[in-house]
Amino acid sequence: MATIKDIAEKLGISAGTVSKGLNGASDISDALRQAVLDTAVEMGYTTKKMKKEEHKKLCIFVENMDYETSNQFGYEIILGFRQAAYRDNWDVIVFPINPAFQMEEKYDTFMLKNGYSGAFLVGFTLQDQWMAQLAATTIPTVLFDNYIKKNPNVAYVGTDSFEGIDSAIEHLVMLGHERIAFLNGSPNSMVSDQRLQAYIDSLSSHHLEYNEKLTAYSYYIVENAKYYVPGFLEEGATAIICSNDYLASGVITECQMQGLHVPKDISVIGFDDLPFSARLNPPLTTIRQDRIELGKCGYFALNCLINHVSISRTMLRAQYIKRGSTAPARPLL
Amino acid sequence: MATIKDIAEKLGISAGTVSKGLNGASDISDALRQAVLDTAVEMGYTTKKMKKEEHKKLCIFVENMDYETSNQFGYEIILGFRQAAYRDNWDVIVFPINPAFQMEEKYDTFMLKNGYSGAFLVGFTLQDQWMAQLAATTIPTVLFDNYIKKNPNVAYVGTDSFEGIDSAIEHLVMLGHERIAFLNGSPNSMVSDQRLQAYIDSLSSHHLEYNEKLTAYSYYIVENAKYYVPGFLEEGATAIICSNDYLASGVITECQMQGLHVPKDISVIGFDDLPFSARLNPPLTTIRQDRIELGKCGYFALNCLINHVSISRTMLRAQYIKRGSTAPARPLL
Repeated sequence: MATIKDIAEKLGISAGTVSKGLNGASDISDALRQAVLDTAVEMGYTTKKMKKEEHKKLCIFVENMDYETSNQFGYEIILGFRQAAYRDNWDVIVFPINPAFQMEEKYDTFMLKNGYSGAFLVGFTLQDQWMAQLAATTIPTVLFDNYIKKNPNVAYVGTDSFEGIDSAIEHLVMLGHERIAFLNGSPNSMVSDQRLQAYIDSLSSHHLEYNEKLTAYSYYIVENAKYYVPGFLEEGATAIICSNDYLASGVITECQMQGLHVPKDISVIGFDDLPFSARLNPPLTTIRQDRIELGKCGYFALNCLINHVSISRTMLRAQYIKRGSTAPARPLL
Repeated sequence: MATIKDIAEKLGISAGTVSKGLNGASDISDALRQAVLDTAVEMGYTTKKMKKEEHKKLCIFVENMDYETSNQFGYEIILGFRQAAYRDNWDVIVFPINPAFQMEEKYDTFMLKNGYSGAFLVGFTLQDQWMAQLAATTIPTVLFDNYIKKNPNVAYVGTDSFEGIDSAIEHLVMLGHERIAFLNGSPNSMVSDQRLQAYIDSLSSHHLEYNEKLTAYSYYIVENAKYYVPGFLEEGATAIICSNDYLASGVITECQMQGLHVPKDISVIGFDDLPFSARLNPPLTTIRQDRIELGKCGYFALNCLINHVSISRTMLRAQYIKRGSTAPARPLL
């Protein structure tokens, strides 16, 4: 278990200041106290004083996602949720989950039996057994990147794709690009539908024509880049926006194999801003989802539902991160 | 100022229980304690213990809206915000505001000078001086029913028109209606755009054709109903959805003046569910915006921004309230 000294080292402050933060002393700033508490949560430091009341319990269910390695998408979302929940004295339990687990017991039964006041679900797909049950659940439940219609006990949180994709297209248009391709994720997913709509809306607001041949579903399979990139190039694409950073790295490799220079011949943009993206060659321009903030957002949404405020959705601002994979458009190849 | 006895009477509990609630005694339920605190906030009861720290101050700016009479839209939004903020020890100051006030001082200057940590803006229009300044404000700011692009310090809260209007159309389709008109509010408003889009999307998902002649902008002027209703009837409308309850009451009157029976000859649906709507003749079927919840939502969104979680929007579920102004469709008149 982490010690006060570990926290002090990580933050670069004295052990005395850490103690003050943990004990709520009034002679340090709010921001510093919050940083101490956030770091204590992250490093797993606990004292008797920090123990939560038994009956205030929330849980996070994670599926299809690595969450135990720091800097991973899942790790950061969960950390953000735990940090925000901690301030309101909630104990948070994390469950990795799979389809078999969902067959064993109904969602509501599991939640009630274990005394959880609410849950945050990360990485679920529409095929999951529990997803169908959420249409009628009475338990406050927040979903990352999935939407349940008309149940006042369920809310959706995610990144605002509309602003994110619009920022990317705005930047490309400024650089003279007119034929911008979009390599999407999997069909029949809320996020893919939203991003495609965002792409179409943004093209229209920039007076660019929507050409269906400049879009494709990759199913998030990086190796598939080779099937789509040639088609995009044939249609005259000078820029390709991808639905995540892995796809973007696959697209860059494919373009380079075709003898093209990124970004001089073709610009490539990712989505997520994962840690490797800045270290790609060229460093990837991308649309950032802030995972820590998404997790905090998940908690704030769940807190709304627990307080009988029936929100349907909360969206986080996307940030456009300009790096080296975008440049002025070349005339048509 | 309200007394403990007043609170006890309003809630129908003993004065002793109210005291327990105010003092945080552990032998009453969380829900009851919250009800006591919410009522104390509503009735303006304060003790020394309930006084807030000087430096934790939020403000609400209200324009174009009655907020001093209980049961009014503005009153309830503000009450909801104050109740939610109270739990987190915020002091909330309410400012009625007008264009002249906005000319006197810049928004950020006013906020910083007075030491407010954030604000909730209700009833502003795009023409307001301060709205233009919000594109670049550094102060956590939440807007009811208005959206500012790409500023991570500003968020929008409102009711989810998509679900609300879809519920209304779903119900009408079930009753056999195929020609459904939509009397919108004012053009060039975010809410009007959203509701029109919601109407078009929902028609399409119910395989109904969108006919522009079945929509109109009323500018929220009830007397204008007489200009639009005849046109809708000519196009064969058997149902009219209106952008607020006042409009719906005007539409009902106009239909009745044309010798039609509501709902036998034509169904009418409102938006908001204001207190008078249930007492109309016939009682109005409507899409409810819960004002108390909207206010609480405003606080939760502001709390996100203050905690550096840059949400762009939070939407509240709409509730479809079925009353007497809707009935099965008549064959074309």
